[in-house]
Amino acid sequence: MDKIELKPIGTIYSPFEYGDPMPIQSTKGRDVEGYIEILPQYEEGLKDLDGFSHIILFFYLHLNDTVKLQTIPFVDHVVRGVFATRSPSRPNHLGMSIVRLERIEGNRIYIKDLDIINGTPLLDIKPYLNNVNKQDPIRLGWYEAYKDDQTKCHD
Amino acid sequence: MDKIELKPIGTIYSPFEYGDPMPIQSTKGRDVEGYIEILPQYEEGLKDLDGFSHIILFFYLHLNDTVKLQTIPFVDHVVRGVFATRSPSRPNHLGMSIVRLERIEGNRIYIKDLDIINGTPLLDIKPYLNNVNKQDPIRLGWYEAYKDDQTKCHD
Repeated sequence: MDKIELKPIGTIYSPFEYGDPMPIQSTKGRDVEGYIEILPQYEEGLKDLDGFSHIILFFYLHLNDTVKLQTIPFVDHVVRGVFATRSPSRPNHLGMSIVRLERIEGNRIYIKDLDIINGTPLLDIKPYLNNVNKQDPIRLGWYEAYKDDQTKCHD
Repeated sequence: MDKIELKPIGTIYSPFEYGDPMPIQSTKGRDVEGYIEILPQYEEGLKDLDGFSHIILFFYLHLNDTVKLQTIPFVDHVVRGVFATRSPSRPNHLGMSIVRLERIEGNRIYIKDLDIINGTPLLDIKPYLNNVNKQDPIRLGWYEAYKDDQTKCHD
């Protein structure tokens, strides 16, 4: 399989425009509000989603067209392999965030705890399941030194 | 943005062939071993990944070319919206699993806790960070009734 073609299922709207200081991660963007508009042809796929307090968004980091296989993370000062970071300059430019689901009105999903740029194309939504998605990591590698620092923002 | 073109960065190898009974989720595939082969041109992106005990795999559900916007989940008996499930018959066929990282040798990553079919194309790897990816969900919707059942398998 050489190439895989995806199509956005909707768009994520947030208060963050390109170049704004923004939280690096959704836990640091607590209470930041936004919404998703799902394309009408996918709306019936939202049935029962409103029962979940948290959802996982998969999106395309559309403003970044560079790939750097080694990079200095925003919170760090040492060059790391891109797969050991959440850098947007990654092969395939896939992004993921766990956000709080507030409510669904038709094809519009209101969400909180956003760290996503306005206009980002949405590729998928999955429910956040705590016996599947919540692990107890033993080692956090280079990130161990930074995990308690909740103050950093993107430049 | 109408279309997005992705390329696999590697392949996931596991004991599960298409049609085998297999665990539905990685927490149910505990201790199942497999490995990833990263394409050589991406190997330098693995630097520092071995410091993390858990990693998040993003992959393409390549054996499924159908989309069902409403579906009965494997563990359930009621029709749900696909975005409220982990069904592979979803738009864009994106899959995600959190697995344990055992060790890295060159471009080969040995992993445990697999629920992925042999030969699955890998799209991305991210580190699992417990202050980013580990949430405390309040509501699990339809899944609440099934979350403690660790015995189910795919048919």
